[in-house]
Amino acid sequence: MSTNDQQRLSTIWTAHFAARAALMRRSAVRELLKLTRRPGMISFALGLPPCELFPVEEVRAAADAVLARHGGDALQYSETEGLPELRDWVAARFSRLGLNLTRANVLMVSGSQQALDLIGRVLLNEGDRVIVENPTYLALLGAWRPLGVKFLAAPCDAEGIRVEELAPLLARQPKLLYTTPNYQNPQGTTMSLPRRAVLVDLLARHNVGLIEDDPYGELRYEGGPLPELLALDAVDAARRGGGSNVIYVGTFSKVLAPGFRVGWVIAPEKVADKLVVAKQAADLHTGTFSQHIIHQLLRQGVLDRQIQILRRACRERRDAMLAALARHFPHDATWTKPAGGMFLMVTLPKEFDAASLLERAIPQGVAFAPGADFHLDGQGRNTLRLNFSNCPPEQIEEGLRRLGSLLKHAKPS
Amino acid sequence: MSTNDQQRLSTIWTAHFAARAALMRRSAVRELLKLTRRPGMISFALGLPPCELFPVEEVRAAADAVLARHGGDALQYSETEGLPELRDWVAARFSRLGLNLTRANVLMVSGSQQALDLIGRVLLNEGDRVIVENPTYLALLGAWRPLGVKFLAAPCDAEGIRVEELAPLLARQPKLLYTTPNYQNPQGTTMSLPRRAVLVDLLARHNVGLIEDDPYGELRYEGGPLPELLALDAVDAARRGGGSNVIYVGTFSKVLAPGFRVGWVIAPEKVADKLVVAKQAADLHTGTFSQHIIHQLLRQGVLDRQIQILRRACRERRDAMLAALARHFPHDATWTKPAGGMFLMVTLPKEFDAASLLERAIPQGVAFAPGADFHLDGQGRNTLRLNFSNCPPEQIEEGLRRLGSLLKHAKPS
Repeated sequence: MSTNDQQRLSTIWTAHFAARAALMRRSAVRELLKLTRRPGMISFALGLPPCELFPVEEVRAAADAVLARHGGDALQYSETEGLPELRDWVAARFSRLGLNLTRANVLMVSGSQQALDLIGRVLLNEGDRVIVENPTYLALLGAWRPLGVKFLAAPCDAEGIRVEELAPLLARQPKLLYTTPNYQNPQGTTMSLPRRAVLVDLLARHNVGLIEDDPYGELRYEGGPLPELLALDAVDAARRGGGSNVIYVGTFSKVLAPGFRVGWVIAPEKVADKLVVAKQAADLHTGTFSQHIIHQLLRQGVLDRQIQILRRACRERRDAMLAALARHFPHDATWTKPAGGMFLMVTLPKEFDAASLLERAIPQGVAFAPGADFHLDGQGRNTLRLNFSNCPPEQIEEGLRRLGSLLKHAKPS
Repeated sequence: MSTNDQQRLSTIWTAHFAARAALMRRSAVRELLKLTRRPGMISFALGLPPCELFPVEEVRAAADAVLARHGGDALQYSETEGLPELRDWVAARFSRLGLNLTRANVLMVSGSQQALDLIGRVLLNEGDRVIVENPTYLALLGAWRPLGVKFLAAPCDAEGIRVEELAPLLARQPKLLYTTPNYQNPQGTTMSLPRRAVLVDLLARHNVGLIEDDPYGELRYEGGPLPELLALDAVDAARRGGGSNVIYVGTFSKVLAPGFRVGWVIAPEKVADKLVVAKQAADLHTGTFSQHIIHQLLRQGVLDRQIQILRRACRERRDAMLAALARHFPHDATWTKPAGGMFLMVTLPKEFDAASLLERAIPQGVAFAPGADFHLDGQGRNTLRLNFSNCPPEQIEEGLRRLGSLLKHAKPS
């Protein structure tokens, strides 16, 4: 058999790839996970919550309790919509004056990433336009890019989307706007209350659906909580006499543990119904055992305790990072000052390239996420996303000292 | 505000639905899950493994052991590809003379349904043709229909696909053929060895990818195991000098417990790579804790013990169902005699309608899955899919007595 024949036969599959497969790109950040597993690596690269603070003993007890109470039923197939008791908990947690949610509005999903994927599948056609913050959550781009969506970059500053500059984007008739209003990934910025109010009104008037992604909202280190866009829109919807214009995405990953893969979507019933059908096709249902364990942790009050533990620890880590940046980074670098969450973003002078800095940093035992991938239109080459939730303060100090030293001694590329 | 305005505003979302959303249909079978939760219902409707036989105590011990050994790391984010030790286990389990698999060929997925979804996303364009058994697995249709795929119905009999009749379908240049060679859902039939050999050769020669879905292979109640299409194709590939033409999909759902949502795909590396990228976008990774528990169960030898337990119990239940059918069903009804798995299919005389039989059966406390949904082209209205794995023999007898009585006393619709 000739080499040509072999070539042909072994590439049967690649010839079979669907057109959308060409739009599926490996996430550089996910690939970094492997590097950061190296012993001794100080990693600011990933969005990992601090696993040394996970409620391990409580999970053990919860698993016991669940198996004792439900037996094999806790390991059986379960409803696509999710465990009814968990959906009720979500509905109750987010209901308030003017916003009456029931379990019919709630779908449990296999982590909030799945929510984004399902929303895209149910709502987006090829060529549809979607407004996103720039930079935005990398895995949102990964989920929706293969659908052939066109992303429109909303201008942002320290208070989130500059709503007063949205008019030209709205004129292009986008179908959705996606935002992480609290402690955004990758910037750590928070959308101010006045902007939230303007945004929900503006989008409803322009018939643009709002996707509110809120994984970090509970990780608040200063100031009071701001109302969700979901809640503001409900008030606005009562005034305008219409239905809800917001799909809200939440998760237990950052406040309990991500390894359970349990998140949720809150949506108008008709949308929730369609998302359920899409989820049936995607993975039948979210893990039964995981959902039961999480519900048991909620019953035991572990969530609110964990939130306090995480706030205390992550606030200290954020402060350590801000202090270390001031100590070790060049004076012409700037960075965001997040009031919560797990990330901040550093902007180096224009002549620096974060990707080549990373190459030099890894041999020094330090990793971070270059900011370019989070940006549209090739911007952000001189930015770094730094995670502060996954390292104790002394490691943060040491890691940033090494990075700062690289920045001082190396020529900008 | 006028009713018209209200109407308009409350339908913002439905107007936003993507074109593919119209192709997403609720699975009648999944909806049945809710009905069958009614106390006292004898259900042959779903593909539930017997949860009273799940290794509950072993799972409790495994969860303990995993948390003791790995601590919070067992609850942390993990690699999209899956736990390396679990991928190694799969690679070792399916490797044999002429088939050398490594973890690079293996992707852990959130239940085998996700594998089907990801395969569709990576490989299928709108208008692509896919050969399936007729009837076929309902949730495969649910996963791939929204992609705009055209299904071609392969003629089947008690020995699976009638390979000698595939020529006209192959002439239409399908991209894939999907099959469940062992104890097929919904029919319970098994593809014979000669047909397996012909099929892998035929598909490779016609450049058609083969998707082998094998959830039930270990649930074998008589006869020896037949080689997987994956293994036969590897031998054939060595002869023809090409690469593998098979993607194999497996799961722990039927042999350990489905509530963990852990399955796997075995694929050529290039395909596995692309599936990983699609999975990143779909749900980041499969549950870390679930994968660790399953790996611990494997280490403890629980899988092989469970397979023995399930074979014994389900064989008895199958036998009870075959006996009860002979006793209670009309003489002009026929049914398949599965050598394994969880289902058999009854064909009533043409004038019967299974859906209306179900309507009469539910008030009698018996449920089953009407066969029509599993068929292409509106066939199978007079067929019933009966699950025998989820009821003890006396319930099987009682349920079929009631169904038989309905069939005798009710006029065909």
